[in-house]
Amino acid sequence: MNIRQMSLAELAKKVEGEVLGDENVLITGFSSLDQAKAGDITFIAKVKGNECLVNTAASAILVPENIMACILPAIKVKDPYLASAIAHNFFLEEEFVAKGIHPRAWVGEDCQLDDEITVMANATIGDRVRIGARTVIYPGVCIGNDVVIGDDCTIHANVTIEEKCLLGNRVILHAGTVIGSDGFGYVADSQGRHIKRPQVGIVVIGDDVEMGANCCVDRATFGITEIKSGSKFDNLVQVAHNVDIGENCILVAQVGIAGSTRLGRNVVLGGKVAVGGHLTLEDGVMVAGRAGVHSDLSAGAVVGGFPAIPIKQWRRSAAIYGKLPELRKEVRRLEKDLEALKNTADG
Amino acid sequence: MNIRQMSLAELAKKVEGEVLGDENVLITGFSSLDQAKAGDITFIAKVKGNECLVNTAASAILVPENIMACILPAIKVKDPYLASAIAHNFFLEEEFVAKGIHPRAWVGEDCQLDDEITVMANATIGDRVRIGARTVIYPGVCIGNDVVIGDDCTIHANVTIEEKCLLGNRVILHAGTVIGSDGFGYVADSQGRHIKRPQVGIVVIGDDVEMGANCCVDRATFGITEIKSGSKFDNLVQVAHNVDIGENCILVAQVGIAGSTRLGRNVVLGGKVAVGGHLTLEDGVMVAGRAGVHSDLSAGAVVGGFPAIPIKQWRRSAAIYGKLPELRKEVRRLEKDLEALKNTADG
Amino acid sequence: MNIRQMSLAELAKKVEGEVLGDENVLITGFSSLDQAKAGDITFIAKVKGNECLVNTAASAILVPENIMACILPAIKVKDPYLASAIAHNFFLEEEFVAKGIHPRAWVGEDCQLDDEITVMANATIGDRVRIGARTVIYPGVCIGNDVVIGDDCTIHANVTIEEKCLLGNRVILHAGTVIGSDGFGYVADSQGRHIKRPQVGIVVIGDDVEMGANCCVDRATFGITEIKSGSKFDNLVQVAHNVDIGENCILVAQVGIAGSTRLGRNVVLGGKVAVGGHLTLEDGVMVAGRAGVHSDLSAGAVVGGFPAIPIKQWRRSAAIYGKLPELRKEVRRLEKDLEALKNTADG
Repeated sequence: MNIRQMSLAELAKKVEGEVLGDENVLITGFSSLDQAKAGDITFIAKVKGNECLVNTAASAILVPENIMACILPAIKVKDPYLASAIAHNFFLEEEFVAKGIHPRAWVGEDCQLDDEITVMANATIGDRVRIGARTVIYPGVCIGNDVVIGDDCTIHANVTIEEKCLLGNRVILHAGTVIGSDGFGYVADSQGRHIKRPQVGIVVIGDDVEMGANCCVDRATFGITEIKSGSKFDNLVQVAHNVDIGENCILVAQVGIAGSTRLGRNVVLGGKVAVGGHLTLEDGVMVAGRAGVHSDLSAGAVVGGFPAIPIKQWRRSAAIYGKLPELRKEVRRLEKDLEALKNTADG
Repeated sequence: MNIRQMSLAELAKKVEGEVLGDENVLITGFSSLDQAKAGDITFIAKVKGNECLVNTAASAILVPENIMACILPAIKVKDPYLASAIAHNFFLEEEFVAKGIHPRAWVGEDCQLDDEITVMANATIGDRVRIGARTVIYPGVCIGNDVVIGDDCTIHANVTIEEKCLLGNRVILHAGTVIGSDGFGYVADSQGRHIKRPQVGIVVIGDDVEMGANCCVDRATFGITEIKSGSKFDNLVQVAHNVDIGENCILVAQVGIAGSTRLGRNVVLGGKVAVGGHLTLEDGVMVAGRAGVHSDLSAGAVVGGFPAIPIKQWRRSAAIYGKLPELRKEVRRLEKDLEALKNTADG
Repeated sequence: MNIRQMSLAELAKKVEGEVLGDENVLITGFSSLDQAKAGDITFIAKVKGNECLVNTAASAILVPENIMACILPAIKVKDPYLASAIAHNFFLEEEFVAKGIHPRAWVGEDCQLDDEITVMANATIGDRVRIGARTVIYPGVCIGNDVVIGDDCTIHANVTIEEKCLLGNRVILHAGTVIGSDGFGYVADSQGRHIKRPQVGIVVIGDDVEMGANCCVDRATFGITEIKSGSKFDNLVQVAHNVDIGENCILVAQVGIAGSTRLGRNVVLGGKVAVGGHLTLEDGVMVAGRAGVHSDLSAGAVVGGFPAIPIKQWRRSAAIYGKLPELRKEVRRLEKDLEALKNTADG
């Protein structure tokens, strides 16, 4: 374990902030307000007023730009969340120590594994697999024939990567995730039996993609299912065959995307969102949790509900939904009143 | 690799179609329009008019029956999707080559494994397991004691099959799927603690069933949870204890079915559909994606929404949902108008 | 196999019931009405009238308290479900037989594994892991460094427990479940790239917790994600970082809970329920299947729908939802009638 350290002044440069107080304080770690100890820097995202008074054992703190005075040495930053992520990653960084291929791992024929690699016990690697430098393969991982994995990847326990799929650099797959299982494609014959359509495509995953646990990304029928660089999936996400997910998308837990749908860049899908097949969601689309998308969405659209409609419209409708019984009562009363009035008019 | 080949005339017989153009063209493979190369047959599902003009390197094409002229040698078929699945499967078919039991696989006592079998590295097979001919067990698969698996099955990596469960022939289970975990059954005692009800039944899976990745099928409390022949599941499908799924059902990704529910034949459940417990969905029922079913459905019913209602009714209601604010405004305006009119009448 | 047996009189004491008929009948097992054989006791939950006439091969039966006469020797109990769970568990109980560590399992350095333990083939245990007495680790299980597992736990095949997580006693994890994968936390930088927030906390699981297959429980960003004693999860449940789940909660299949949300004791979430982040659901809250919770809920609240509202209100609104087209027609008719009446009044 190599303890990293930095003066507050140096750290301020790293997070593009401005020091408030003693810039020579030595920082050796990052933690949350309540768990920090001496040597740590911590952070606060919002402060009432322009003075920061917090109760923490930390030696310094990242604060929003509006702060003028602080009980601790501080760094003023535009976005304390971003600065704290940068600082935390810096202090956690360790030099990669390759442990090589565990004698209880199985590696097939004609593989090209970088010398600087860790493959743990009971991992299984097929034939002709290529794996880059500083990649770690956890126990129970199963990698099919002809898979290619880049540098600096972390493939957690019990992940499955089916044959021929391609992963970029710095990809993180959490435990139990499955890449490249067959797409769901059948054709019914005249007796109603479902004839399988062979799924001969692959999955291509770009750089810096992270997927949570127990996700599923199906291989394409033909061609590729693609997850472009920087996209992040939470747990239990389902991506069907031939889907194309753009750069830096966020898919929250239990999202499901049907076949051949295309997402632009920086699309955000909330938890449990469903997106139908053969649709296009353009750059920056945001879909609220539990919504169901049945039609194309243009760049920047923000929608909710099922079928998904503009989020404000959905919120107004959702608010009335719970009052439908009252609305119907009003209508019934109006009918009676009108009937009474008619009779008066006739009478 | 044995390349299969067939003349267009022979292939036309196989797919029950009629040749248009040179029936002696030799076909050696199948691919999509844009990826096909010389020797391949490809397909097109719909054509405007009765002339087929496509841009492809393929040597022949499967076309709908209405086509009268084609730029390529063609086979006219009733359903180009079905014909292309049949053709594609034919050209992909390879003779099974048994690789035997990998020295790094573990097989328990008193098993009966067919000689023509492939069990890959780091697979674990319990005691008294029976596995049929030409079945392939991928790495990381865990098979419990007394499991029976038929002929020609493919059990992908990291699948778990719990003890005593029975699989038919030609079953395909994709990576990470779990067959035979305990059903979810408890009884609360007087202190609100949940006492487990033992789950002593099994799961029985018929012939030609295919399940996607990371699915869960629970064993029965008593008796069996049954998935009948020809049914197909997408990824992340949940089937609770004592459920009975009929022949040739289609369950799209993330469907969940609660305990003791019975599906007839050829039932189709769209993505993320939820079906309550102890219900019966008769033959041919179709449930639109994201719907929630709370009551029995008779044969051929087509429903959507939650609680699920006839699909047309649901579509009409869903269309009005987004306009609820306007509807309420109309009602409010009517109230005012009526009040004004009353005052006039009274006045 | 040690067959357990008990007289009806003894069993009546165990389940806090009263014998009706021959109290000396010897009971050797428990089964369902239709599958029971001689020597078994079975149960019936509801009986019309006060006489119990059933067709079963069982030797005795557990019946509700209102029964006055029974065709079989019987035990009258307050809750036949609870009594049958107690009886069934008793007859299934077997003495634990430790099989030790399988030569094909891998155990890392400096572990403290109890002597009375079973670790099956192809399981992988990291360094400094502690596992208590009578715990069973199935094949394919991957346990990270510094994990602690208590006594009498059952960890089914292909489960992953990430480093440092802590499990209590009598915990059951079904196949494919993942404990301690990273929480889903990122901060966007100025180019819209998502910078990972390190997830350095752990997961703590109390005594008597049971989780179904392919569940995911994420480790905390800092501190702990906690599942308190006695809580039970069905399959495919998603629990995000820093969630705190109270004692004896029930989470049905495919539930998803977002980060930092707190559940009190005995909370019940129906199938596919979604709960937003940073919320508090107090003791005894019940959420109907498929509901989505967006706000705090006070003790004993029973809600449904999305956004979730009191269950009765939701039921009334849901019933009207399908009739929205009719409601709108009524409003349109009223408008016309009113217009006509105005014209009359004006005319």
